[in-house]
Amino acid sequence: MVNRAANQRISDSFYKEKLPQPSKRSMDPGTLLAPVPVVMISTGGSCYSVKRPNIITVAWAGTLNSDPPIVGIGVRPERYSYDAILKSGEFVINLVSRDLVSRCDYCGVTSGREVDKFAACGLTPVPIAPLEDAPAIAESPLNLACRVTGHSPLPSHDLILGEVVGIEAATSLFDSDNALHLERADLISYIHGQYYELGKLLGFFGYSIARPEVLARRLKK
Amino acid sequence: MVNRAANQRISDSFYKEKLPQPSKRSMDPGTLLAPVPVVMISTGGSCYSVKRPNIITVAWAGTLNSDPPIVGIGVRPERYSYDAILKSGEFVINLVSRDLVSRCDYCGVTSGREVDKFAACGLTPVPIAPLEDAPAIAESPLNLACRVTGHSPLPSHDLILGEVVGIEAATSLFDSDNALHLERADLISYIHGQYYELGKLLGFFGYSIARPEVLARRLKK
Repeated sequence: MVNRAANQRISDSFYKEKLPQPSKRSMDPGTLLAPVPVVMISTGGSCYSVKRPNIITVAWAGTLNSDPPIVGIGVRPERYSYDAILKSGEFVINLVSRDLVSRCDYCGVTSGREVDKFAACGLTPVPIAPLEDAPAIAESPLNLACRVTGHSPLPSHDLILGEVVGIEAATSLFDSDNALHLERADLISYIHGQYYELGKLLGFFGYSIARPEVLARRLKK
Repeated sequence: MVNRAANQRISDSFYKEKLPQPSKRSMDPGTLLAPVPVVMISTGGSCYSVKRPNIITVAWAGTLNSDPPIVGIGVRPERYSYDAILKSGEFVINLVSRDLVSRCDYCGVTSGREVDKFAACGLTPVPIAPLEDAPAIAESPLNLACRVTGHSPLPSHDLILGEVVGIEAATSLFDSDNALHLERADLISYIHGQYYELGKLLGFFGYSIARPEVLARRLKK
């Protein structure tokens, strides 16, 4: 998404001041890309003898493709919901607001083999179109209904791809012009084992080259 | 990473209080998984006639596998750095601290075809072992050196997989026991086109079932 017009306003010395260069040390390779999104994945239970829906958290989840929207999730094959996702071909990504953090954590440290997580968390499974098996979590501010479109085993996790085929969003996230304000959802983030709320707005895509009047209008909101 | 011991301390009514269920409306499918990480990808220039390194931002980046650590990035084939990554087989993921946000945004809206982004941003390319072509950004608090291990074309973006083969981290991120505190890096997050700083610590992985003395010790830090 390169803005070619922007190159009119840039030069080889756009930033005059230098930033400090921290002293560094080497570490062994690890999974330190951060912050990462925290989501709750809900699944149906039609493939199990006890036909109850379940909620898992995953090591990672992300958007992989824009058009059509395709997400990827990393799931270990030994997880209880692995079969539920691949046999039904469906899952729902539920975004996690601040008031859901503790329940999200709980769903990550318990197994659907032993616990009815919807019941234990006091959460409500609701149908989400056009899926037939996987429910959405009613209490989450935004639900992405996904149909499995691909599946790649990696050494420890499987990469499962899903096309987003439907979205339900809280009406409180929209302004009077029907524009979505996802920042109103009080979403949380995850850094190296810790959950954080989000803080101050720092800028918007393209703000580094925006004209002063655009900056003033958009950053005051 | 299910904690089986945890199931000793849970029941089907772990959470007594109910959360509100927001009223919802349907939306067209889109890329609304959030918040997402913001990273700067640095590449070498050995495949180009002008052999300068470059910095791009990507639609998404995430950890795909834990052991060995494998990351994935989504890059449109028409991006200038697409060849630099695939021909050298190398790229570096540089985490973005608050003081790098504006430069990161700038690197996302300009093209390395026209601009020397390291020079324009006043940033410093430095070698990172064991890579030979792609440099790290010295001013970033943490750099992940990646070697390309796979590559899957998706409809609009290519999914490029890279194994993390080396890490450089700012010494200020370590405590006196040599434990890493990535939360000290002032990392930023991205929601629906907007950059946010991170706020208050809400909990740690497993905190929902932790004993009160563990909670008190770990959340007071």
